[in-house]
Amino acid sequence: MNLDTIFYEAQQAFLTYKNLSATKKADFLEKIAELLEANRGAIVLMACKESNLPEGRINGELGRTIGQIKLFANLVREGSWVEATIDPADPNRAPLPKADIRRMLTPLGPVVVFGASNFPLAFSTAGGDTISALAAGCPVIYKGHPAHPDTSKFVGQCISQALEKSELPAGVFTHVEGGVKMGQDLVKHPLAKAVGFTGSFSAGKSLFNIAGNREVPIPVYAEMGSVNPIFTFSQRLANELVPLAQSFVSSLTLGAGQFCTNPGLIFVPKSLSDRFSNAISEAITGVSPAPMLHEGIADSYYKALTELQLRSELNWVKVPDAKHLINASPALAEISVQDWLSDDQFQEEVFGSFAMMVVYDSEADLIAVANKLHGQLTVTLWADTPELQAHGELINLLEEKCGRLLFKGVPTGVEVGYAMQHGGPYPSTTDSRSTSVGAYAIKRFARPIAFQDMPQELLPDALQDGNPLGIMRLVNGEFKK
Amino acid sequence: MNLDTIFYEAQQAFLTYKNLSATKKADFLEKIAELLEANRGAIVLMACKESNLPEGRINGELGRTIGQIKLFANLVREGSWVEATIDPADPNRAPLPKADIRRMLTPLGPVVVFGASNFPLAFSTAGGDTISALAAGCPVIYKGHPAHPDTSKFVGQCISQALEKSELPAGVFTHVEGGVKMGQDLVKHPLAKAVGFTGSFSAGKSLFNIAGNREVPIPVYAEMGSVNPIFTFSQRLANELVPLAQSFVSSLTLGAGQFCTNPGLIFVPKSLSDRFSNAISEAITGVSPAPMLHEGIADSYYKALTELQLRSELNWVKVPDAKHLINASPALAEISVQDWLSDDQFQEEVFGSFAMMVVYDSEADLIAVANKLHGQLTVTLWADTPELQAHGELINLLEEKCGRLLFKGVPTGVEVGYAMQHGGPYPSTTDSRSTSVGAYAIKRFARPIAFQDMPQELLPDALQDGNPLGIMRLVNGEFKK
Repeated sequence: MNLDTIFYEAQQAFLTYKNLSATKKADFLEKIAELLEANRGAIVLMACKESNLPEGRINGELGRTIGQIKLFANLVREGSWVEATIDPADPNRAPLPKADIRRMLTPLGPVVVFGASNFPLAFSTAGGDTISALAAGCPVIYKGHPAHPDTSKFVGQCISQALEKSELPAGVFTHVEGGVKMGQDLVKHPLAKAVGFTGSFSAGKSLFNIAGNREVPIPVYAEMGSVNPIFTFSQRLANELVPLAQSFVSSLTLGAGQFCTNPGLIFVPKSLSDRFSNAISEAITGVSPAPMLHEGIADSYYKALTELQLRSELNWVKVPDAKHLINASPALAEISVQDWLSDDQFQEEVFGSFAMMVVYDSEADLIAVANKLHGQLTVTLWADTPELQAHGELINLLEEKCGRLLFKGVPTGVEVGYAMQHGGPYPSTTDSRSTSVGAYAIKRFARPIAFQDMPQELLPDALQDGNPLGIMRLVNGEFKK
Repeated sequence: MNLDTIFYEAQQAFLTYKNLSATKKADFLEKIAELLEANRGAIVLMACKESNLPEGRINGELGRTIGQIKLFANLVREGSWVEATIDPADPNRAPLPKADIRRMLTPLGPVVVFGASNFPLAFSTAGGDTISALAAGCPVIYKGHPAHPDTSKFVGQCISQALEKSELPAGVFTHVEGGVKMGQDLVKHPLAKAVGFTGSFSAGKSLFNIAGNREVPIPVYAEMGSVNPIFTFSQRLANELVPLAQSFVSSLTLGAGQFCTNPGLIFVPKSLSDRFSNAISEAITGVSPAPMLHEGIADSYYKALTELQLRSELNWVKVPDAKHLINASPALAEISVQDWLSDDQFQEEVFGSFAMMVVYDSEADLIAVANKLHGQLTVTLWADTPELQAHGELINLLEEKCGRLLFKGVPTGVEVGYAMQHGGPYPSTTDSRSTSVGAYAIKRFARPIAFQDMPQELLPDALQDGNPLGIMRLVNGEFKK
């Protein structure tokens, strides 16, 4: 099928699918989850082979993918996500009678989704972008990632089967394959209404530019990763030095460091930097090099490290092992806060298990860092409560630089729930107003529509008198169920 | 002050203002409303003089402006708009304990607002964009519209006075003046975080392009008007022919046709087109030419009409009177649906009291129209309920082309409330996911932030255990107050 046909069918499917009842849409999503579960063995085998990720991880990722689908099925079934809002008429208002106005969210139309190489399941074919778009009522045209073509195609077939079993038009989901040109053509297509993307800055930004320069611009939700800085403070660090070093190293090296929330930057007070770097050094020695997703990513990782090894500002706490096949060796370099502040290059992401440890002296150093810091998916603070209370100005500034602020634990391991925010200020994403993980991800693919004086018989269920769906609504400014 | 100083002060003010309690923010907004009310006489005099709009209209517009401010003050005081969402921790979850995650909306930062010439008050200095940004917690740098400089400056002084009386930093609101270059520089400034605009397509689109091409792109909420088509159907039209013609003409000519929601396009069934055009002709004859906002707008109106008068496809039901000073004469031309469909030029907005009456034959004609129609702020259907029920496919298509769908009355007269949607698919706005009128306008200037395992002492009030603000929150997926 050529793209015009694909989009035409998606658009035709949209005109039916957007009006599907919440129950039927939820049933369809659950059908996808069932089919993935039923094919767990085959999917895990394929995804492990294509991603070089271990079975435990892929099994867990499939569980998470299925969990996500169920979250959106529940959200759709419950129904309040449409933000139903009713301002009743007032025929007696002077000088002019007041009309009856009812507003709700309505899906945008066909959405183009690009999968991520580093999550062959949870951020790919039936991942968060696809499922939240389908949940909103948007057909999806999904471009399979060339790093895991078989997994992608197979999961795509599960979605298509779920459509068939649910007696829904095939155009609701289409799996396409291709390279950069295909991706650009998808975003350029006049019938595309939004784009979901997880991947590199260069690819995400280029799609953002294409979408903004269309005759009719469309939104691009691109999650492009970040360095996810951790700020450590002396009191807490002194108390938990070894466990914190260990949990840092394990977050850094998890999945060969191939996570959007991988902590590539850690700020350490000078008074403890030697002890902390020793503890890290000890923890990191035990971590063997692990295979990366593919040759190209391993090459980029080593290329970036080779360039950094030429920089005199860096002292290497852990020099990377020589490149062997597609394995990534963990690596860590120390730098003074003054040197770090002197060059933006030092906050560029190195995709893989490399981090920079920045040694600071004072609160003023950290304020300077916070002011210079690029937008991040996450920022983590390891501090005792009194330390946090003493650093109010810093925290206030850091809030402006991230989508999620952590006070315990590590940034990797993104919970899928209602409150998760996975999206931060540019350049971590192209749209800090959105999240690509968690329930609110559905809102990316909808827009409000208001109906004025629409006869009851024609109103969508969500807006009818008597609230037949039993959803939470804002009526005359008050929440009512 | 140069722009760097202005933005620096706005950014500094932001770091305090964003943390202001809901109560103090609401008090500040109400203080603005009070000062506008206290200066009603002076403001109305100035605005009438500068806009050529009659006193009744300007008085009403000031009332509406004050009403808007009170709506946002109430919204902020009530507090639930921040979408507080809490996923509590579960330390016993296997295989990994679950963190405590709490999400809410947080303001974007300094916002640049451009006022509209056609609403010197309600869409200008203390208009919906400024007030919704202030309500969200964003400082505003406002560029006064050159069509009403004195009104703009005076209202700006009221806002600054309200800041002073509320003991808030002056940087929360700055009034600047200048031309196109100044507007571009404001949007280009690195500290600007979003843009609100109401005006022409060419100006709005140019700001959108500038914002998208910044090193750090920012959102532009530009409301650029539309032709707001009315679709009439034979049963309803036959029953109410004269009153509908009258209400159409009065909406078309209200305020010399200078509304974003002015109905510039009306579709009429062939069987009734002669009778309807006679009724319109009769109604329109009684309407005298009215002064437009300024010379430039009157010139553009007559230039557009002169060009249209060269088109052989048009039959003029009401030829415009010869240009006299800055007055606009109402005008109306008839065209067949086939001719209308043949050229996109026929759906370009003519700013002023001109409309095109398109004569159609069949449902198929209207489906073709719906498919070709550009994005609109509003679409109106004048039909009996059985007629609406018979045109489900058409309504389904039209929903995709507008932000508000009306079934009675006229598109002019935009209610300010909770359910209003004033924003439609491109090119009527640059962002169909947003509204520039009504309570939801506040959401344009905020983004989500999640706090993971934040100590209670540090959490914002909206997210603390025990819900000290008594707002509606989503806790573990359930609405709770």
